[in-house]
Amino acid sequence: MIRSIEWAGDRVRFIDQTKLPTEEMYIETDRPSVLAEAITSLKIRGAPALGVAAAYGLVLGLQHSKAEGWEKLTKSFEETASMLQSTRPTAVNLSWAIERMRARLRQIHQSWGLVSANQSECNSPRDIVGCLLDEAKAIHREDEEMCAAIGRYGNDLVPQRAAILTHCNTGALATGGEGTAQAIITTAAAQGKNISVYADETRPLLQGARLTAWELQKQRIAVTLITDNAAAFVMKRKKIDLVVVGADRIAANGDTANKIGTYNVAIIAKEHGIPFYVAAPTSTIDVSLLHGEMIPIEERQANEVTEGFGTRSAPYGVNVFNPAFDITPGGLITAIVTERGVLRPPYAVSISETMKGALLKTSLGKDV
Amino acid sequence: MIRSIEWAGDRVRFIDQTKLPTEEMYIETDRPSVLAEAITSLKIRGAPALGVAAAYGLVLGLQHSKAEGWEKLTKSFEETASMLQSTRPTAVNLSWAIERMRARLRQIHQSWGLVSANQSECNSPRDIVGCLLDEAKAIHREDEEMCAAIGRYGNDLVPQRAAILTHCNTGALATGGEGTAQAIITTAAAQGKNISVYADETRPLLQGARLTAWELQKQRIAVTLITDNAAAFVMKRKKIDLVVVGADRIAANGDTANKIGTYNVAIIAKEHGIPFYVAAPTSTIDVSLLHGEMIPIEERQANEVTEGFGTRSAPYGVNVFNPAFDITPGGLITAIVTERGVLRPPYAVSISETMKGALLKTSLGKDV
Repeated sequence: MIRSIEWAGDRVRFIDQTKLPTEEMYIETDRPSVLAEAITSLKIRGAPALGVAAAYGLVLGLQHSKAEGWEKLTKSFEETASMLQSTRPTAVNLSWAIERMRARLRQIHQSWGLVSANQSECNSPRDIVGCLLDEAKAIHREDEEMCAAIGRYGNDLVPQRAAILTHCNTGALATGGEGTAQAIITTAAAQGKNISVYADETRPLLQGARLTAWELQKQRIAVTLITDNAAAFVMKRKKIDLVVVGADRIAANGDTANKIGTYNVAIIAKEHGIPFYVAAPTSTIDVSLLHGEMIPIEERQANEVTEGFGTRSAPYGVNVFNPAFDITPGGLITAIVTERGVLRPPYAVSISETMKGALLKTSLGKDV
Repeated sequence: MIRSIEWAGDRVRFIDQTKLPTEEMYIETDRPSVLAEAITSLKIRGAPALGVAAAYGLVLGLQHSKAEGWEKLTKSFEETASMLQSTRPTAVNLSWAIERMRARLRQIHQSWGLVSANQSECNSPRDIVGCLLDEAKAIHREDEEMCAAIGRYGNDLVPQRAAILTHCNTGALATGGEGTAQAIITTAAAQGKNISVYADETRPLLQGARLTAWELQKQRIAVTLITDNAAAFVMKRKKIDLVVVGADRIAANGDTANKIGTYNVAIIAKEHGIPFYVAAPTSTIDVSLLHGEMIPIEERQANEVTEGFGTRSAPYGVNVFNPAFDITPGGLITAIVTERGVLRPPYAVSISETMKGALLKTSLGKDV
């Protein structure tokens, strides 16, 4: 399995996804600003991977800070948090991970009053860095376990000889583990099921062509690349059994923000009577939003559309509308596969029940 | 208006559409093989334009032939016809134009017996070329009139402040006139309607980005370029009033072959309750085919998907399925706008009535 991101001594090491599939290049950095730029420019991408990256980024920030005393430490933490938070607006995992690291920091502060200075595990800035690094590693480890659990639950939905259509990339590159939607595919294949995958290329940035096809090819799972435009024709002619995609944010009613084009695929699947599954960890569910229209949608630069891959392919000066995500209504989603099980409609109920008692917990297990 | 193809003295002049939008380059040739290659490589494209090109191509073939006598002439004609016919399988206008030129040639032969040699207008190979050139020019002129008529009929379907979504290119570049679907847009705009157009970029070959955006920009019609993936999101958020597309072949029941992705758009339009119109001349209707599954679908090379525009964007060795067209069932089509009027469902009836008595006619007006 590819490790898209990992902690390496005192720095973060990650694969530059913009260089794939022609070059497998890794970047190491101890600067949170480099990490933030890597997120903005999509060198690191995928909602769960963004959460892991943000957690490590906060550690990098404190590691280099010369701040002493609680107030200055907090200020330094919040500066890094704000920089990381502003990189991308749609995936909720980013703010989820920052919020969890913030909660851990608060716990550390609380513990200062309770134990004598030399007994505390986190009583100097250096120790605090170590404690927060432990938390970031816990987030990473849990992400890995979450991927495996999604794979297991989702596998039950996959028939023996399944033709599966997927959109964008939801594999190891998008997570800290083996993926979300893609973990279902790899788990089913590992169970000996005869799986074939149709991968939407996913314009404008071709994550399907560049990343999903590359990962599945490495894993020796039969994959056929198609343009997004061919999805309906493929569903009809190639007898697709199911569609499975990831998510960047899921509202309380099941409405799901995911890579632009997901909504197209969901509608087309419905027309053909094909089950449409979303696979995501519960950290992607944002119960503070009642419905999908409340999810902020990132718009990206025109040149992703007009100058894809170095060649100008549209007239100069043309208007471009380039939303990076769309919203698939819960009504089009057959089920949502999470690490806690498979959620079914009505999602307002199943999400509420699943998230009950799932308040933010740090690795110490305390609700905060 | 751009002249995508025209007769220039003793040769054909056409714009190289693969060079657009960054370069406006014209090619002149008197060799039918160059014309055939231009069709295969999409320098010339668009179903009606293919008909015009094929007609001129047959003239080029005979012009250079040293064949004398009816048998040799016919053989030479059929050689060129066969070469042109084999360029692309889906658009029926190609074989329609060849069949009409063949019919005209037959008329000429029949007339040989009826008049004395020196009275006949077409009694030597050179004269035959002239007669067939007249026929090709008639096909071209009728195509122009057809575009104008489609524009007029279609305009009645366009509200005052219409936001229109279109797919691929159906403008002057795709026809011998001002376009099919696009003629509706330009006619509505010329009538003072406040039109805004969303143009699907249309992967893999980006005819929407390269050609439609370029043409509409030249005509000062408000156009916004989107990825094909954004179509559903745009329909929902931008309040699209109607979708209009062209066609490469329409079966007797209204099932329509058009650029890959058209079927996606039709399904998505239905989901949003948006009218979905097809605009095409009756020469695109193939009443010999009962339904769309009988229409041959061209599959094109993998590198259109994996190496679009010079950069490798998929792993080497990956399987690719690259159909150039898909079939939109008549049931998803609100109306078909032809040069003879607007056809409504059930298409088996409206098409049959429209095509009645519309047997192949040459410019002499005789059914053959």
